[in-house]
Amino acid sequence: MSETDIYRKQRMGGLIGKGRRTALVIVDFVNGFIDPNIFGGGNTLEAAEATVPVLKAFRERQLPVVFTRIVYADDGSDAGVWCEKAPRLRELTESNPASHVIDILKPLGGEIVIRKTQPSAFFDTALGSLLRSKNVDALAVVGATTSGCVRATVVDAISANFRPTVIADCVGDRATGPHEANLFDMHQKYANLIKSDELDSIFA
Amino acid sequence: MSETDIYRKQRMGGLIGKGRRTALVIVDFVNGFIDPNIFGGGNTLEAAEATVPVLKAFRERQLPVVFTRIVYADDGSDAGVWCEKAPRLRELTESNPASHVIDILKPLGGEIVIRKTQPSAFFDTALGSLLRSKNVDALAVVGATTSGCVRATVVDAISANFRPTVIADCVGDRATGPHEANLFDMHQKYANLIKSDELDSIFA
Amino acid sequence: MSETDIYRKQRMGGLIGKGRRTALVIVDFVNGFIDPNIFGGGNTLEAAEATVPVLKAFRERQLPVVFTRIVYADDGSDAGVWCEKAPRLRELTESNPASHVIDILKPLGGEIVIRKTQPSAFFDTALGSLLRSKNVDALAVVGATTSGCVRATVVDAISANFRPTVIADCVGDRATGPHEANLFDMHQKYANLIKSDELDSIFA
Amino acid sequence: MSETDIYRKQRMGGLIGKGRRTALVIVDFVNGFIDPNIFGGGNTLEAAEATVPVLKAFRERQLPVVFTRIVYADDGSDAGVWCEKAPRLRELTESNPASHVIDILKPLGGEIVIRKTQPSAFFDTALGSLLRSKNVDALAVVGATTSGCVRATVVDAISANFRPTVIADCVGDRATGPHEANLFDMHQKYANLIKSDELDSIFA
Repeated sequence: MSETDIYRKQRMGGLIGKGRRTALVIVDFVNGFIDPNIFGGGNTLEAAEATVPVLKAFRERQLPVVFTRIVYADDGSDAGVWCEKAPRLRELTESNPASHVIDILKPLGGEIVIRKTQPSAFFDTALGSLLRSKNVDALAVVGATTSGCVRATVVDAISANFRPTVIADCVGDRATGPHEANLFDMHQKYANLIKSDELDSIFA
Repeated sequence: MSETDIYRKQRMGGLIGKGRRTALVIVDFVNGFIDPNIFGGGNTLEAAEATVPVLKAFRERQLPVVFTRIVYADDGSDAGVWCEKAPRLRELTESNPASHVIDILKPLGGEIVIRKTQPSAFFDTALGSLLRSKNVDALAVVGATTSGCVRATVVDAISANFRPTVIADCVGDRATGPHEANLFDMHQKYANLIKSDELDSIFA
Repeated sequence: MSETDIYRKQRMGGLIGKGRRTALVIVDFVNGFIDPNIFGGGNTLEAAEATVPVLKAFRERQLPVVFTRIVYADDGSDAGVWCEKAPRLRELTESNPASHVIDILKPLGGEIVIRKTQPSAFFDTALGSLLRSKNVDALAVVGATTSGCVRATVVDAISANFRPTVIADCVGDRATGPHEANLFDMHQKYANLIKSDELDSIFA
Repeated sequence: MSETDIYRKQRMGGLIGKGRRTALVIVDFVNGFIDPNIFGGGNTLEAAEATVPVLKAFRERQLPVVFTRIVYADDGSDAGVWCEKAPRLRELTESNPASHVIDILKPLGGEIVIRKTQPSAFFDTALGSLLRSKNVDALAVVGATTSGCVRATVVDAISANFRPTVIADCVGDRATGPHEANLFDMHQKYANLIKSDELDSIFA
C-alpha cells in the first residue's frame, strides 16, 4: 500500500469547506527569507514573484491582507529558545533590511503587519483577534518557508477554526525536500492546496 | 550543495541548551493512534513500546509526566475545521477506547492528562500553565504521529520557550516518509533529537 | 468633579457598535455558585431566574448558547495557584453536583459546555475558536459572579474583539458592593450594559 | 454578616504561597496614564513615585523587570473593539510621548518592554513566554490603572499560574472608588497585597 493509500484509507486529506470571507496572509516574505546568504534561497524568490498577482487580486476585492515579519528587539531582550536553534534570527531587528517586507509586496497603509518572534503568525500575537474584527473565517496562506513559518501558521489557523488554503506556487523554501514534504503534510492534514491560477475558487 | 549543507551554512540545527527540569510529554499514544485501521499503523506500536522504559525513568526521578488524548464531545459540539480534513477524529469521544491511553503506558493518579481537540497539546489547553506550576523549563516529547501532533506540540513548545527534546525512537507515524521528513525539520529548527538510550543526557 | 465626570472627560464609557451575530454566554450558573454555603448567595439565584427567558430568546432565534462550568480533575492534577486563594474550588469536580449547571438552565444536546479551571471562560479553553466556527462577533454575558468570572470573561471577550453586552439583571454576586463596582467598571471600559427587557436591542 | 465575612465564610482571600523567583511588572506607567487630561489623574503620579525605590530594589537583586505600554499602529490597523469604548486609546502610537514610560521609571537596555493593545499585559503578547525563559514563577505588579490594566494583568497572571502580589501603594487610578473596589477584589480572589515597605517579604 502506498503512503498516499494509507492516508486515503484513514479518510484523511478531505476537502475543507469554503469560507464566507478570506484574508490573505503573506508569511515572512522579507529580504532575509529571499537572500540565500541569510535564511532564503531555493524557490523563495520565485514564490514571492508568483504572489504579486495574488496580492493584487485580494486588494481589488478589498479583502484583508496581512503581512508578517520576524522582528526581535535591538537589545535582544525578547530572544528565546528558538534563537538557540537558529542564532541568526536575532539579527532580524526592526531597522535591519533583512526583516523588511520585499519591495514587490510592500504593505499599504492600513494593511495589518504582524511582528512575531516565533514560527507561527498566531503565536503570542494579535492576529487571531484582528482577523475576528475583520469578519474573516478563511485564510489563503503564502510565504516562506513552506517547512517553517508557513506550516506553523497553517497548523495554528486550522486549530483556531480558520479555513486554510495554501497557494502551492506561492510558498517557497530553501530546500526542495522539506518544501515537498510539508506540502504533502498540509494537504493531508491541515489545508486545501491550490495553484495561484485557481484563485477564483476560493472567493465566494 | 546538499540540503543539509544549506541548513549548516545558514547556521540552523544548533543545539538547544539543557533545561533545569524536564517533563515527559506523551502525545496521543492512545489505541486509535496505534490501530492501523483508525489513525495508527507504521511504527507507532514500536515507538510506544520503546516509551515504556522512558516513562519508568521519569517516574523514578519523580519528574512530571503529561499524557495527551484527542477527545471530542459526544454531541459533536466542539468539532471544528480539522474534522473536515479528517472526519474520523469525531469518533474520538471520552468513552471510545480509541481515545484511551494504551494499557502499557497507563497514567497514574496525579499525572496530568490533557484532553485536546487540535494537533498541538498546547493549543487552547492549560498545558503551558500547568507546566509552569511544576517548575518545568524543558520537555522530552514522544508519541504519535511524528508528522502530526508530535510536531505541532514541539513547535508550540519551543515557541513558548520550553526546551524540547524529541526521543526519535519513541515517536511514530503511519508512514515512513512523513516520519523521516518531520524528524529532519524538528532537528534543524525546533528540537534536540536523541535516542532513548541517551536519555541520561537530558537529566541535569 | 464626580467620578463619573472623570470618565466622561476622558471619553470613556462609549457605546460599542452592534455585532452581526450574538452568542449567549452563561458563566458558571452552577449549583455551587447559587448556594450561599459554597460560592453563591447574594442575588445569584435571582439573576439565574432572570436568565430563563433570555436563554429561551436565544434558543428561539437559533443563536449559539455557551455554558461554562469550573471543573477540576478528581485527583487535583490540574489545580493551580487560584486554588490557594480559594481552596474550595478544588471541590468542583466533574461528578460533584456543585459543578453542574442549575436545572432551570440545563444545556441541550449540541450546546457548547466549556469546562474551565480559571476565572475567564476564554483562558486556556477553546471558547474563542469555537465561537469563530459559529460566525459570532458579539456576546451577551450573564452568570456569576459579576466581580469574578463574569468580569474576567468580559475583559477577555473585548480583548479578543468580540462585542460584549452584559445583561445587568442576569449577573449576580455574593455581595452587593463588588457587584455594583464591577458593573460600573464594565460599563465604563469593557461592555455595553442592558436590562433583560431590552434584549431586542442586541439582535440585528 | 458583613461583605468581608461572606468571603471569609466561603474561604476566599487565602494567602498565595511564596514564589521561587519574582519579576516586577510595571503596567502602563506612561505619560498618558499620569496626565489627568488623557487617562491619568487621581493617585497615579503618587503611585509612580512610590515605585521608584521598588524598581531600584529589583534591579539591585538583578531580578527581571518588565514594562508595559499601550501602543497602536500609526495607521490604526490594529485598533479593535476596546477603542470603541475608549476612543482616545488610538492616540497612543509609538512616537506619541503619551505612550512612553515616564522618565522616573525609564527602562534600561535589556529590560523587557511589552507593547500591548488590550488591558492585560499577557493578552496576545509574548509576556508569558518571556517570563518562562527567565525562570520566573511569581510577579510583583504595580502600575495604572488599578481597576483597568493592573487588574486584567493580575487575573491573567494567576490564571497562568504565576503567583501575583500587588504592591498597594504603587498602583493608582483616576478615581478612588474603582481603585479601592479593585484592591478588594484582587485581595479576595487573585493576589496577595502588600505595601512597598514590606517588599522584603516577597524575596526568597
